[in-house]
Amino acid sequence: MDDIHVAVLGTGGIGRRTLEVSQHKAGIVPVAACDRHGIAVDHGGLDVDELLEATEGNVASERTGDRERGSAESGAAIEAGERAGVKQTGENAGVVASEQGEPTETAIDDVIAESDAIDAVVIALPNLEHGFVPAVADRFVDADYSGVLVDVLKRSRVIGLLDEREERFEDAGITFVCGAGATPGFLTGAAALAAQSFVEVEAVEIRWGVGLKSGYEDNRGTVREDIAHLDGYDIDAARDMSDAEIETLLEERDGTLEFDDMDHADDVLLERAGICDAADVTVGGILDVRSDEKPTTTTVSVTGRTFDGERGTNTFQLDDATSMAANVNGPALGYLKAGVDRNRNDDYGVVGAAELMPGF
Amino acid sequence: MDDIHVAVLGTGGIGRRTLEVSQHKAGIVPVAACDRHGIAVDHGGLDVDELLEATEGNVASERTGDRERGSAESGAAIEAGERAGVKQTGENAGVVASEQGEPTETAIDDVIAESDAIDAVVIALPNLEHGFVPAVADRFVDADYSGVLVDVLKRSRVIGLLDEREERFEDAGITFVCGAGATPGFLTGAAALAAQSFVEVEAVEIRWGVGLKSGYEDNRGTVREDIAHLDGYDIDAARDMSDAEIETLLEERDGTLEFDDMDHADDVLLERAGICDAADVTVGGILDVRSDEKPTTTTVSVTGRTFDGERGTNTFQLDDATSMAANVNGPALGYLKAGVDRNRNDDYGVVGAAELMPGF
Repeated sequence: MDDIHVAVLGTGGIGRRTLEVSQHKAGIVPVAACDRHGIAVDHGGLDVDELLEATEGNVASERTGDRERGSAESGAAIEAGERAGVKQTGENAGVVASEQGEPTETAIDDVIAESDAIDAVVIALPNLEHGFVPAVADRFVDADYSGVLVDVLKRSRVIGLLDEREERFEDAGITFVCGAGATPGFLTGAAALAAQSFVEVEAVEIRWGVGLKSGYEDNRGTVREDIAHLDGYDIDAARDMSDAEIETLLEERDGTLEFDDMDHADDVLLERAGICDAADVTVGGILDVRSDEKPTTTTVSVTGRTFDGERGTNTFQLDDATSMAANVNGPALGYLKAGVDRNRNDDYGVVGAAELMPGF
Repeated sequence: MDDIHVAVLGTGGIGRRTLEVSQHKAGIVPVAACDRHGIAVDHGGLDVDELLEATEGNVASERTGDRERGSAESGAAIEAGERAGVKQTGENAGVVASEQGEPTETAIDDVIAESDAIDAVVIALPNLEHGFVPAVADRFVDADYSGVLVDVLKRSRVIGLLDEREERFEDAGITFVCGAGATPGFLTGAAALAAQSFVEVEAVEIRWGVGLKSGYEDNRGTVREDIAHLDGYDIDAARDMSDAEIETLLEERDGTLEFDDMDHADDVLLERAGICDAADVTVGGILDVRSDEKPTTTTVSVTGRTFDGERGTNTFQLDDATSMAANVNGPALGYLKAGVDRNRNDDYGVVGAAELMPGF
């Protein structure tokens, strides 16, 4: 396969790790990265090491210092926080801290301007507004971009907003791969595969564990999105919380958040692929921001009925040693490759993680 | 997606169960089935119930009586065997026992003659001769067939024979999906998916358990192929064994055969997909022909290193209640659907199970 030239929108935890993991992937060449401060473009391939090093602790929550990833600070220390940070605002903020970065106020448009030479775009932007990712996609359509768009969104209802754009994507020559992170994404694909023993799937249960101590600073946006899934909270409430309020909430719960029956798009993605009804899918998990140990083993359980009348449950388990970052960004690039395959075969429109698996 | 019109070559255990499982699959219409005695064709869709009922205990090993599937005979009873059988030879043998069947001595050619109206062909023929499935494929190429060919072959070296034909398949418009059963196939795909946490895969271990008591009669060909994997046996030896010798072998081992480091194509299929070296893949298992209980739980373990320097093992497990037939034939049709997707997008050539998963 020809090299895949990739742009990454957003340089928070997911965007940064996408760039990092791409260095381990044959055939993936990151050529552009942007955030709201600026853009870095090199069609021969970004110097990812330089970009990550220059911006570490700078572009994610945009307020930390030069703390090493993986260090052993306590949650309390994070909370007390090195809020001073460096280069978090002003002309050298964000990606602009890199030698490769140029300041701009129109970062996404600037990526779009380069998009003739871009095969795939990873949309790694905060997505508390459901309409945000679809609106970003609209801008690529309007600019006559033809290629792959990949998101790692979570919420079921965003898929519907993308489906409304199906025809526009097809006309433009865009293959939109939606829900390509861990859940939905990796674990959705695992459920789709585990279903293959069965002719009827009765229940899919996805239960994840994330220990995020050393990745917490980089993933404040993700934590905020997760809070919106808690009982008593919603998207508006989570968005309106101050950072201090989030820290207080975490303090009250000893740094651990437990989720049941989350609004994660695994359900609609599995239904799209014809595997089960969305209502048969439950997603829950436990997030611990004060430990790197997972509070529970991430497990996908698929219960179904075989053609010969038996009933069973197939399971897929991730080793506790695999981080959220490993389980989001590897699969995101894996699904990206599958999307590029489709796009290069002129197969356009919206496709979910479960549809990039063997059929059901 | 438009309906997929499918032909099944061979009406042994795998072919019969492929027909049966296809009845549970939306969009798959079996339109032709053949064995060495005859052919049944109905482009509007075969009456699978009639075909299976008429030929039960007749077309597989071609010597059993009208034993019910799933009955509780002992291995000894099978061994003593109802060898008289019905309709196992002569003008109404095999598929010809069905009202839909017509006798022919050129069954494969007769299917090929209908192939303009066939989207995919499942090759479910005994394959002790490595060159047999590739030679069948050649006949489809020579007849200008354009569509999907699917096999459930096991041996690594057959893939090489198919690769030699890559260009001919591409010219003809054939997408050849190889190794699309359980292992290789389902479990290869599970390994490919489990690898997504990692940037480097160190080891893939596939360990299967099969309890085949009630499916034994239907799967004598598979058992014979498996014997060729035992220490001290090879393909020639297994092919030359009389049925009585096979029964004696099983008797000596209390009906249980254990396999280590089998020559299964999971290894080359994972290497083709760029996931690991073939040498890092081991396949083993335990077959018990005297119990329907699995002697061990089928498990895929993938050990690798993450981008962030951790090492872990992800696992995929099949419920003991899922039969070999469920785990071969569901995935075979799942991969068939993925192959048809590719074929309809003019994507031709040889593709393995692991390549029909997200990229690595």
